[in-house]
Formats: sequence, structure tokens, C-alpha cells
Amino acid sequence: MKLCLIGYGNVGYGFIEVLRRHRPWLKERFGFAPKIVAIHDIRRGTILNPDGLDLKIIADAWRNNQNLCELGGSTNAPNALAVIKDSGADVVLELTPTDLRTGEPAAGHIRFALLSGKHVVTTNKGPVALFGKELLVLARKNGVQFRFEGTVMAGTPLFSLVDFTLAVPVQRVRGILNGTTNFILTQMEAGKGYEEALAEAQRLGYAETDPTADVEGFDALAKIVILANMVLDGDLRPSDVSCQGITKLAPPEVQRAPKEGFRWKLVAEARRTKDGVEAKVSPERLPLSDPLAQVGGVLNALTLELDPLGTITVVGPGAGPEVTGHAVLSDLLAIHRGLQ
Amino acid sequence: MKLCLIGYGNVGYGFIEVLRRHRPWLKERFGFAPKIVAIHDIRRGTILNPDGLDLKIIADAWRNNQNLCELGGSTNAPNALAVIKDSGADVVLELTPTDLRTGEPAAGHIRFALLSGKHVVTTNKGPVALFGKELLVLARKNGVQFRFEGTVMAGTPLFSLVDFTLAVPVQRVRGILNGTTNFILTQMEAGKGYEEALAEAQRLGYAETDPTADVEGFDALAKIVILANMVLDGDLRPSDVSCQGITKLAPPEVQRAPKEGFRWKLVAEARRTKDGVEAKVSPERLPLSDPLAQVGGVLNALTLELDPLGTITVVGPGAGPEVTGHAVLSDLLAIHRGLQ
Repeated sequence: MKLCLIGYGNVGYGFIEVLRRHRPWLKERFGFAPKIVAIHDIRRGTILNPDGLDLKIIADAWRNNQNLCELGGSTNAPNALAVIKDSGADVVLELTPTDLRTGEPAAGHIRFALLSGKHVVTTNKGPVALFGKELLVLARKNGVQFRFEGTVMAGTPLFSLVDFTLAVPVQRVRGILNGTTNFILTQMEAGKGYEEALAEAQRLGYAETDPTADVEGFDALAKIVILANMVLDGDLRPSDVSCQGITKLAPPEVQRAPKEGFRWKLVAEARRTKDGVEAKVSPERLPLSDPLAQVGGVLNALTLELDPLGTITVVGPGAGPEVTGHAVLSDLLAIHRGLQ
Repeated sequence: MKLCLIGYGNVGYGFIEVLRRHRPWLKERFGFAPKIVAIHDIRRGTILNPDGLDLKIIADAWRNNQNLCELGGSTNAPNALAVIKDSGADVVLELTPTDLRTGEPAAGHIRFALLSGKHVVTTNKGPVALFGKELLVLARKNGVQFRFEGTVMAGTPLFSLVDFTLAVPVQRVRGILNGTTNFILTQMEAGKGYEEALAEAQRLGYAETDPTADVEGFDALAKIVILANMVLDGDLRPSDVSCQGITKLAPPEVQRAPKEGFRWKLVAEARRTKDGVEAKVSPERLPLSDPLAQVGGVLNALTLELDPLGTITVVGPGAGPEVTGHAVLSDLLAIHRGLQ
């Protein structure tokens, strides 16, 4: 399997590190030995090698912030589409930064790759939230797979869990899908004010300098739209979903709730209704007996309600380069094994 | 796909009910339309029909405690092996009651079915705990699958999660694998004595008249041996594993623990070591921050430690006819889809 990486940031690097570490195991257990034949990053440059790049060298280049062009290898390709075309790859990994409003440039890369008969694996929420079903149809028409495990809860299995382990339909999903806000709420419950908790999250690298996408719920919104459309077969756009973040929560209320047997969480939910699928993102005062109430810090969790088997809950890390890299690897392995 | 059920108790009935309810969905979504061509139960009799039995009729017969022989259909086959042979089934569902000491008669049924070139799905812990790896090898040699999702945590995905969604090896598993003892501990924490909590569990149907297998940890032991051997590739026999149940826990200690930030749980654990795989079952005083500490009542949970991706935890029902029936259906669907 030949891979072309478009975007070489934290996730791309994390993927390569996980792949390096488990290469012998993957080969022995699954006969799986992918080669990276091209990397293109708008900031870090481009490198192609049809025989496969040396993973140690490209990982070192990432850590040293070295431009890929300096490593040699053919680098004529001027842009992402040309790299996809010239790479000879079977699978394109779309790992560029997400744009939740337009889905670009990732959506363009994905469409081009699918139309070229290449499988696509992405961790990029924008294009899947905005155009997920269209892209699935496009993949099917072109006889390839489009996989996106890393878009929700990083490398904790969700889409593959639904695809490959359940034999009954999912009726409803409810989850804590944003680690940053969950960390802030956990801190607030312990007595910090909102600003202080946010500053702590920023200091630890959990929140960005501009925390809007997290604290206003937009990140969770994109994820619940993906789940609504791809797991519950809904047809929602982000603008269809009511979304409230955590900025209006009163810290004393957050702090007091556990004494009354509750805990505030930012909950994203999607469920089947008579008329289709509904979704929302909002802070909820959950009873402590709810499995989601027990998920603290940057952890994420999703409860799946299955008809009529009750609920199962998956708890795991929701972010991190290697964890998200695992999502990519898991999608690639599914493609390698022909699982659909 | 033609199915032969050996054993028609709660699980067999639960399986048929789940199948009935989701038949249209399974057919539309996966083109999956299994037929039951034979049922044999030592107490309820035998029925064969190569064209497929009517699911409603056999479900009604179960509820009415009617002997299957009264329903018509060829019933010459005198015993399980003859039914397996005569059924013309592609898949044998081994759903007889478990015997943790000998694994029989299930192990004999499974060996015979695999040697006859039939896939086997079982929910029976005994044969998998005692002979799991031998049976897997036998299945491979005969070009068929041997699946056992329902042996641990019922229909909550575990083995299929490891098989089909992870791309890195599991290093360690720790779980609450017995709902009866977890229910008793939850009751004891709320102030009940051991005998009183046990009586309540028996009244609700969670514990059997002879609760030994649950409260002495033998049920959890069988499950952790299955996980140790089938997920961590160990080679343990139940007698290799140290096992302590909950009968020696002092109720005041159980009740006091949460005030000190802890909670007593019966924990089953298996992990890779330098020399192979180790496992144990014992009551543990877990910090409340441990995801397992938050799993109350009859719920089960398993934490998987992945190298180096941290931990994921799956929480779900650990017993129940339909839930276990879902495990059977999920295994059958994997066979139907050719997932291996």
C-alpha cells in the first residue's frame, strides 16, 4: 500500500511515529507494510519517492523543523493536487488543518483523490461535517473507501466500532466530544473561575490562543454532525444544529452541582426521530450516575443507544498526535484488510 | 447462511428475538438473511427443516415451554452431533449451559462442527477458557471461523473491537467482568450486609441459587483467561490464575471506602510480561478517578491498555438474553461479511 500525506503537522507526525513503532507487529500479524511515497505540506514543503520514504528521516525532519525539499527526492510537484496525481499512491491521507466553515482546502483534495480512484483517510472534521455523505457516495462510485475515524474521539474506535462490531442499528448517541471544555469544566468544579481554568488549559496546550471553536461548542458541533450523518444516516448541516458552549455557565453553579448529585458537562447529542435525525450541543446538568458524568479532564466519551440492547459507552483520549495517528493507522488497516 | 442451534435456553431465545426484530434492517443493510435450519436442546427436543424454521413459531414454543418435537419437522436425529451432521448448516451456534471445569459437552460439539467444516459461534465460556487456542487452530485448519464475542461482556463489543478496530497491540486488560458481584458490592456500599445484598441479587435474578461461581470469582476467572489467551496471546489455564472472590470483604470496609476516595471492585486483570502473560482476579480498592470505579450495579466494563496510546474503556451490559443474543448476531454478521 502506497500512501501520500497531504498535510504534515502533529497528526502526520504522530501517525508516522505509531507506524514506526508497530511496523514489525503490523507486518507479522496482518501482512501490512505500507510505504509513504509522498508528503506535501504547505509550510514544510514536498517530497516524493516512489520506492518509499525512510520513516526515520522524515520524522527527524519534522522534529527539526526542516523543510522536506532539503531531503532530496523529486519535488517538482507544485501543489497538493499535483502531488496526489504524481505520487502513484493508493491512499491519500488528508491531514491538513480543519476549516469548519468551508471544509477547504481539504474537501478539494479529498474529491480529487476519490475521483482519481484513490482511497482517502482523513482526520479533518471540516469536509466530513460539511460534505460527508457526498464524499461517501463519491468514494463508492469510484470503487474506493473514504474513512474518517480520527474526526471524532481521535484514535478511540467509534466509526469502526459501529461499522464492524454492531449488528443492530444505533438509535441515539450522546457524548463528551471536546476535551478542552471538559478540562475547563473539571477545573471550574474544583473551584477555579472560567478565565483561570481557560488560562490553565492554554498553559497545558489543551486550548488554543483563540479558544472560540472549543468554548463556544463549534468543535463539538462539527463532531455531532458527523455522527448524526455518518452513524445515524441523517442529513444535517452544522447550521441545522442548536449549539451552546460553556461561556455562559456560572462557575458557582458548576461548583455546587456535585454536592447535589449532579455534574455539568458539555453534551453533544444526536438521535433518530420520526422525521429524521436531530442533534444539539449544550451544557447539561447530568446525574452523577450517568456514565458521561464520570468522564473528567481531557477524556472524551460517547454513549451509543442501541435498539433494544441498552447502552454502551466508550471512554478514551479525544486528542493527541499519536492517538489521532492511531485512527489513521486503523483506517488504513481496515482498507488493507478489505473491511467495508 | 444456514444456522444450527445447539442449546435453546435464554441466549438462544434472545438471539432469535433480536434477529426477528432486525431482520429487515440486516437484509437491507448487509444483504444478511440467515435461516435457522435446526435446533437441538437436551430438554426442549429437536427440530430440523432444511428450508428454514419459522422464527415466530419457535420463539412462541420457547415462551410456552413447548417441546420442539411437537412442532413437526424431521426429528430423527438422536443427539447434538447427529443434528449438526444432518442439519446441512454452515454455522453451528453452541449455546448450551457452561461447564467451567470440563468445557463439555460444548467442547465436543465445537470440535465436531469445526472438523465438519462448519463455522462455530459460541457464548459458552467453558470451552473457550479451557481450549480456546486449540479450537482457533482447528478452525483455521478447516478453513472456517470460530467466534465467541458473547463469552465476555455479552453483546458489548470486545473481541470484535480488538479484531477489527485496533491497529496496535493490547498490552493489558482490566475489567469488571461479573455483574452479580458488582451489584452486590454496590449494594454493600449503600449499607447492606453481604447476605442481604446477595439475597437481593437472587431476588432480582442476577444471582443463582448457588452463587458460588459468581461470588468466588470463578466466572470472572474464566473470562480473564479467555481475554489473556485470545487477546493477549497468552497460554494460561484457569488453574494458573490466582483468584479471590468477594466473600471475604468486610462490609464496613466496603461502605467506608468512598468517604476516603476509593471504591471496592472485583477486578480481573491480564497483562503481557517479559515471560508471557499473567492474570489474576481479586477485589481491589480503586481510586474513584479510575473509570472502573464508576461502573455500578450489574454493568460490566473493560479497560484496554494500548501501547503507547493510553487506555480506552468500554462500558456496557454484561448479561441478558437479548444482549448476549446480539453477540451471536454480531459474530454471524462478521462471518457473513468475511471479516477475519
